[in-house]
This record gives sequence, C-alpha cells and structure tokens, in this order.
Amino acid sequence: MGFSRILAGAAAALALAAGAAEAASPAPQVRAWRQSNEKAIVADFVKLLSLPNVATNVSDVEKNAAYLQELLKGRGFATQLLTAEPGTPPSVFGELKTPGARRTVVFYAHFDGQPVGQKGWVTPPFQPSMRTALPEATPVDWQGAAGPLDPAWRLYARSTGDDKGSIQSLLSALDALKATGRKPSVNIKVLWEGEEEQGSPHFEALVRKHKALLKGDLLIMGDGPMHQSGRQQINFGNRGIAGFKATVYGPTRPLHDGHYGSWAPSPTVMIASLVMSLREDNGRIPIPGFADDVTPVSAADKAALAALPDVETDLKTSLGLGRNIGEGRLADGYLAPTFNVRAIHAGDTGPDAANAIATEAEASFDIRLAPGMTPERAREKTEAYLAAQGWKIVRDTPDMPTRLQNPKVVRINWDDGESVATKTPMDGPAAAAVAASIGRTVGYPVLKLPIVGASSGMAKIVDALEVPMVGVSIANYDNNQHSVNENITLQALWGGIEVYAGLISDLSW
Amino acid sequence: MGFSRILAGAAAALALAAGAAEAASPAPQVRAWRQSNEKAIVADFVKLLSLPNVATNVSDVEKNAAYLQELLKGRGFATQLLTAEPGTPPSVFGELKTPGARRTVVFYAHFDGQPVGQKGWVTPPFQPSMRTALPEATPVDWQGAAGPLDPAWRLYARSTGDDKGSIQSLLSALDALKATGRKPSVNIKVLWEGEEEQGSPHFEALVRKHKALLKGDLLIMGDGPMHQSGRQQINFGNRGIAGFKATVYGPTRPLHDGHYGSWAPSPTVMIASLVMSLREDNGRIPIPGFADDVTPVSAADKAALAALPDVETDLKTSLGLGRNIGEGRLADGYLAPTFNVRAIHAGDTGPDAANAIATEAEASFDIRLAPGMTPERAREKTEAYLAAQGWKIVRDTPDMPTRLQNPKVVRINWDDGESVATKTPMDGPAAAAVAASIGRTVGYPVLKLPIVGASSGMAKIVDALEVPMVGVSIANYDNNQHSVNENITLQALWGGIEVYAGLISDLSW
Repeated sequence: MGFSRILAGAAAALALAAGAAEAASPAPQVRAWRQSNEKAIVADFVKLLSLPNVATNVSDVEKNAAYLQELLKGRGFATQLLTAEPGTPPSVFGELKTPGARRTVVFYAHFDGQPVGQKGWVTPPFQPSMRTALPEATPVDWQGAAGPLDPAWRLYARSTGDDKGSIQSLLSALDALKATGRKPSVNIKVLWEGEEEQGSPHFEALVRKHKALLKGDLLIMGDGPMHQSGRQQINFGNRGIAGFKATVYGPTRPLHDGHYGSWAPSPTVMIASLVMSLREDNGRIPIPGFADDVTPVSAADKAALAALPDVETDLKTSLGLGRNIGEGRLADGYLAPTFNVRAIHAGDTGPDAANAIATEAEASFDIRLAPGMTPERAREKTEAYLAAQGWKIVRDTPDMPTRLQNPKVVRINWDDGESVATKTPMDGPAAAAVAASIGRTVGYPVLKLPIVGASSGMAKIVDALEVPMVGVSIANYDNNQHSVNENITLQALWGGIEVYAGLISDLSW
Repeated sequence: MGFSRILAGAAAALALAAGAAEAASPAPQVRAWRQSNEKAIVADFVKLLSLPNVATNVSDVEKNAAYLQELLKGRGFATQLLTAEPGTPPSVFGELKTPGARRTVVFYAHFDGQPVGQKGWVTPPFQPSMRTALPEATPVDWQGAAGPLDPAWRLYARSTGDDKGSIQSLLSALDALKATGRKPSVNIKVLWEGEEEQGSPHFEALVRKHKALLKGDLLIMGDGPMHQSGRQQINFGNRGIAGFKATVYGPTRPLHDGHYGSWAPSPTVMIASLVMSLREDNGRIPIPGFADDVTPVSAADKAALAALPDVETDLKTSLGLGRNIGEGRLADGYLAPTFNVRAIHAGDTGPDAANAIATEAEASFDIRLAPGMTPERAREKTEAYLAAQGWKIVRDTPDMPTRLQNPKVVRINWDDGESVATKTPMDGPAAAAVAASIGRTVGYPVLKLPIVGASSGMAKIVDALEVPMVGVSIANYDNNQHSVNENITLQALWGGIEVYAGLISDLSW
C-alpha cells in the first residue's frame, strides 16, 4: 500500500536530522536483543493470547489476571490484584521502584477483549495463528521458519491489537533492558484493567479505592492503534460514549403485506425513518443543538490535526471506498460528536423472507461524545428530538393502551457503561517528555493527535488520579480491533517493544 | 372482538329479506350433514395438513399431489397430474361431468405453502393442533370433545387458510351433496396448483400446455381470506408483484466506529436512506410517476369499495395500532401500488453488537402492482430513481474498481416469479351468478371487492384460458397466512363447505 515505503524514507531522513539525541535511546540495543529473541517473544505472546478474555466472562478475566500477575512477579514487580468489591473483575497492579528516580509513570492497558461471536474468523479467536502479509494472509509456520521472522507477518487472535499487544511490548521491553544492562529512569507502575470492553462499570470505584497506590506523575495509556501512515503517534485523550437500542412497534401479529401493506404501519419502514432522523448519510446529526456543549477546537489542536500525514487517499483505496463522509481528513471529526448506527434488524431476509409486515423492528446506536458533552445531555437531546418527531418513548414493551393511544411508539434502552471525553493539554512537561522520548526511539517527530475518535472510561481515571494522560499506541492501524480477525503485525510489535523500552529508560522531565 | 356479533345480527336481518330465493340453496341440508360429521371432516383435514408442503421442496409437493389425486378419485373424478415439463412441481387436475349441464366451472386453489422458518410457531407447522378461541388459544382435545365442536376453535397448521382450507371445503361439499342426494348443476373441473408460494414459475406453461383440458366458462379462485367483518366476499382479481433484494456496501473490512465513524460511509445508514427514498412512513412512494400506468379506478369500483363494511376501527384495536397509513379504508389502496419493505438487516444487534462499521447491509422489498402496471416498468422506474439518487446499480458483489469509482453502490437482484394484476368486470353474467349463489347460501348480499391486495400468477392463467375469474375466499381474515401460527376457525371451515356446496349445485347463468 505504499505506507511502509513512505515510512522508511521519512525515518531515514529524520534519523539524520535527529543526530546526537539518538544516542540516549536504548532502541539499537533493544532491537539487537529482539532480533536474537524473536521466536521466544512470539511464543510468550501466543501464550498470553491463548487465554480467552471476553469481558463478560469474569472467570476468564480472573485467569488472565492471575497469569499477568505471575509475569510481573517474574520481572521483579511487587504485585496485587485490585477489585472495586469482591466478585467484580480484577485489575492487575504492579510496581517496580527505581532507586533515585524522581518520577513515577503509571502504564495503563486493558487485558479483556471484545465479544467474539461475529462470523468470519479465519481461525478461532483464542488459537493465535501467524499469517503472511495481506492480502494473501496464508497460515505460516513461524516456529519452523529459518532466519528472522518477516515483519509483515501478522499474528491473528482477539486482543492482539487491543490491548494485549501493549502489555507484551512492555513485558518484552523490560526483558530487553535487563538483558542489555540498561536501567529504568522512572519508577514504574502498571495498571492493567479487566473490564474495559464491558464499559468499565467498576473501574472508577477501583481506582478511587486504590488512589494512593496508583499515585503517579504521568499516565501512559496503551490503547488504540498507530496512525494510518504507519508512524508512531501519541494522543492526549479520547471521546466519551452513550449507546442505546431502539425498538419500534407495528401490528401485534404479522400481517400479509399484500392485504395490509397500504394501510398498516410498517415497523421496518419506521425504524429506517427513525434512523434517518438521528443520523444522515453524510454523517450530519439532525438533532437541533446536539453539538452545542462541545468545547471549541483550539488553534493548537487545529494545527496538530493539520500536521497529520495524508492517509485518506490510500485508506480509501485499501477500503474500497468511493467517497468519505464528513470532513476530508479522518481525524477532523474527532473533536465533534459522531452518531453511529451499529445495526438495524427488521424482518427476515434470505430464504425465509416472507411477504409480511413484522410486529417490531430494532436498531442499535452509539454516540461518540466530544469534550464538553455529557451522556445526560446527549440522552435528553436525542429523546426530546424523537418526541418532537411524534415518538412516544417507553422503557419496556408497550402495553395495548400505550400502543392504541400513540401513533408511533419506540422503546429506548440506554447502554450501561457510558462515559465522557477526557483531554490532557498537549504542551505540559510530562506530555512533552513522552513526545521527545518516542521521537528519539523512532528517529522522527512523533505525530500528535489531540484526541482519539474512540471512547474509554479514562476520563474518570484521569479525574480520580489527577494526573496528565498521554496515549501511546503501538498496534498497526488495520488491526481489526473490535471485529473478526483482529491481528498485529510483527513490525508493530517490534516497534512497540522499542517504544516502551524508551519510555521506561529514557524518559525524564 | 365484536365481529361475530355484527355478523350474526346482519345475517339474521338479511336472511329475512332474501326470502324465497333461500329455498334453492343446499345450505340447510349441508349444514345438517356437517353437524353430524364434524369430527370426520376435521380428521380428513388434519390428514391433508400433516403433509409438509413448502413450495421449495418438490418431493413434498409431489406427495401432496398424489394424495389429493386419490381424494378426487374416491369422489368419482377423472384425474391426472399436470406438469409443465418433467421435474417441475405437479398440479392436480380433476374432472366430474354432470349430465345435462351447460356450464363448466374450474375450481382453482393452491396446495403448496409458504416457508415455515420464522420463529414463534406454538406447535410445529405440520402437526395440526386445535386451540380454543383467541386470545387464550389453549390446546383442546377435539377428538374427545362431547357434543358439537365450538365454531370459535381454531385449527393451527401451515396452509389451513392459504389454501388447503378451500380444498377441504370443496371436498367436504362434494361429500355433503352426495350424502343429501343433491346433484351438481355444472360440470366441475379442479385445478390445484403446487408452486404458487414459489411465484408459479412453471404454472403458465402448464396451463397453456393443457389449455384444452382446462377449458371452462368460469374460474373460481379459492385463495385469500374473507372480509374482516367476517362476511363472505368475492373478488374479481388480484394485484401483481415484483420483489427484489438490495445490498449496499461500506468498507471492505469492518472498522471501529469510534475511529472511523465520522469519516467512513456507514452501510447501515445507507440502507436506511435507500429504504426511505423508495417508501415513506405514510406509505407514499417517492419514485416520480410510479403510478402513472395504473388503470383509473371506475365509479363501479369506487361504489363497491365504499359499500364494504367498516372494519378499520375494530382492526386497529385488535392489532394494537394507534394509527393507519394511506387512506382511511383498508381496501382503498388495493387499486394502487404498494411498496413494501419486507426486511432490513445491517450489523448485529443483541449481545454481539459491536461498535463497528459493517461492510454491507441489505433490505428486501416487494412491490404490489395495480392493474395497468407491469413488472418491467416498475423495475425500470425503481432503478432509474435509485440511479438519480446517485446509486450505481450492479448485479453481483462489486469489484474494487466499481467500489472506488462510485460513491454509492447497490447490488439489486430481482425475484423470480413476478406477475401482473388481473381484474374481471364485476357485471358479467358468470360473476353475477356467483354473487347470487353465495347470497342465497349465506342469506345476505355477498360483499364485492373489485380486487384483492395480494398477488398471484392468475393473470397469466386468466389470459391463457380466456375465462372470467371470481375469487371466493372462505378463510377467517385473521388466519396468519404467510406467517407463523397460520390457522382457520371451524366457523370459517363450516361456512366454506356451505359456500362450495352452493357453487356446485346452485349455480346457473
């Protein structure tokens, strides 16, 4: 696709420019160590990925936590499992003190994963498989391979990119520094969450309960993908989220659509109409004043967004898209809300399609909230607008009087796990130190993304810990996170190890 | 629900008015015979319903045909199985000549049934079960019941209403007439189709091939339900149909909707937009000139529609509808096209709902065609309008160049089995004779529906046989045809036997 070529050229040019600063980075020694230990690193990672970790299964989450705790202990960490209260999913805490260090960095990632029920996995999601580069992606025997592993190969499994790849990078970075005799420059704390993909229902309470333990000067958030150009990027926050399911109602029994189609309201049409009243094809949200609460985009943010490399043309080509919606630049929409329609289900398609008017139809939505917005206000505005469109909003299946007294009834149920956005100023000393460290590691100025488009519960954590947060992403952008065939390229994993080694040993402010 | 009360009162009043004409009807003797043979009639019907008859399974259709052929032979018919060509679904033909009769009446019905894959059958669709009146519908032991069976009971199985109920009515009517010594007044031919719910792909060829055999003076079409008031009605035709599936395309791989939702087009939104561009919530079809070819509605048709009893208020109450769409009267839309959205499927709802932009989404449609319209013109206008909305129309999964060169791509595949409408003039002598016969049987003027809202391939048959067609419907209107829990009330079945006995023995023109 041309990205790696662009990257190699840029890196070479910038490496020359970076000059003397390069010397402080442990990257060359870490790379040499990695080159001698590739199969052992992958074997460790495969072991971690083989543990099922769907967030809804607490006992699986507990098994992951116990295993991670052992890995930290083996590397000299004092560890414990943290919970908000008994029976809730554990998070893993570890601490490694560095004599003489003035700063403490808390490394966050989550080890739980998205559901795996979608169809289309080429191999089971918890049986990691190595495959050749896209588009062939044929299975390859990495254990039997002679010479170095091809960095374009991809390891497929749930959580390769989101987030076990960050966890493995940190663990291998510690191994690399130890093997090369390089000391950490900061006190290290890790906080690995076990319920992020569930919407972190207990995580804020967990963090507040253990606030003293988790105290630090900087939070490194190891979630999310690298820039689509293949370059390392850091970010300073994420959007919030509020999701809901809407169910609309037609006749109480299915009706022959020849006899009744011109007279009985169709829930299939009603749900399409409801969808279009909330979200237009071009991404516009017709709800009046929906973005009124959004924090205005600063000149610094605009400049950082404008400085991001052009990836859109190549992205469209690789994704088979004849157009984009919204702004021309991918990240330009991140400081605004997005109203996503996750799914619509109405009637049956396929061989069982019947010429019938269905009794109900449903759609599922998630709203990405920009800084300044709250889930409460988003809920209020969404529902007020639906009410203004003539919808009677209920929370349960409507009874007959409700159906008969209202022309259009919609059941709306909001998801648990909603969150607000968080955003750390880009120009603070800790943030600047992170940018400088990664720049030394990779040999070019790291890209700065004011905020990522995705959501997490980090706002509550940043507020609780009163700490600046910088997101460091190491997974390839096309890692299929949240979907089938999630994967990580070996190139991304190798780069992640070097980045984390730098952050541990080369970070100071 | 009040219908049976209204019916009973109206029937009593009209029976008095009908006076002397009543004497010619065999209804009193047929009723007495039925009252003595209820369990035997139901047992015969259960046997017929127990034969699976989903139209797509030819070997099941063949078993039904062979069984029906035996039933006709046992009643003195000369029979044969007709096919268009070897390997296609058979239809059943039977002939019973009446010495001295001047007229030949062809009785049509179909014995194949709709698919049964939809969820929600209270008992398996081919294990007929008797249940008490709605809304309780509790299983009842009709074989062990003492005294007459409750006419409000319903027999549940696929095809009870659509159309095996008509077939059983004709068979039991023949038995009743024989038992009571009453002779037919016309030559009888039966033509029972085996692929109607498949869209009758071979039926026109079958009829044209056997045109001489099928010659008659009147075609009685035994499909469709009675009027919602519970009164007997006849109709003079049906609408045509053209159906299609539309698939729209987003990115070639699923994308995280936090990172990409404001930039990548969403097929979930695209399919909702496409749906709304073809069919509005109120039933309006936005396609310019879509109804231009429709035959203008005559004054006689308008008068017949206006004379139909008011059922809409009770219907809305029983269906839990707070409104209707289109005209206020149910049948007023039948002489116009209806654009039905059978189904939309896009993304996953439920526990596996992912915050992802799906790669594609689909919807399924059927267009009911009014007299004057053709499937060809409906297809052309639909596709021209989609093209005018910016859609690139393809017939297969689009390749990359097609995706990249077109902002919006839709794959459209039209269903097999499309048809045009057919409509017999209401004032012809054969049509008038049918109305008079049924009026004598039921004791009130039969309702006349200019056309039914449903579709069938009858237009081709009427054209091939050059014969007037009158539709005689005997199933209760709420028989759930084409859906789960299809059923017939015993009252409807008993009424059907009397109506058919009259048509066989009391029809002359």
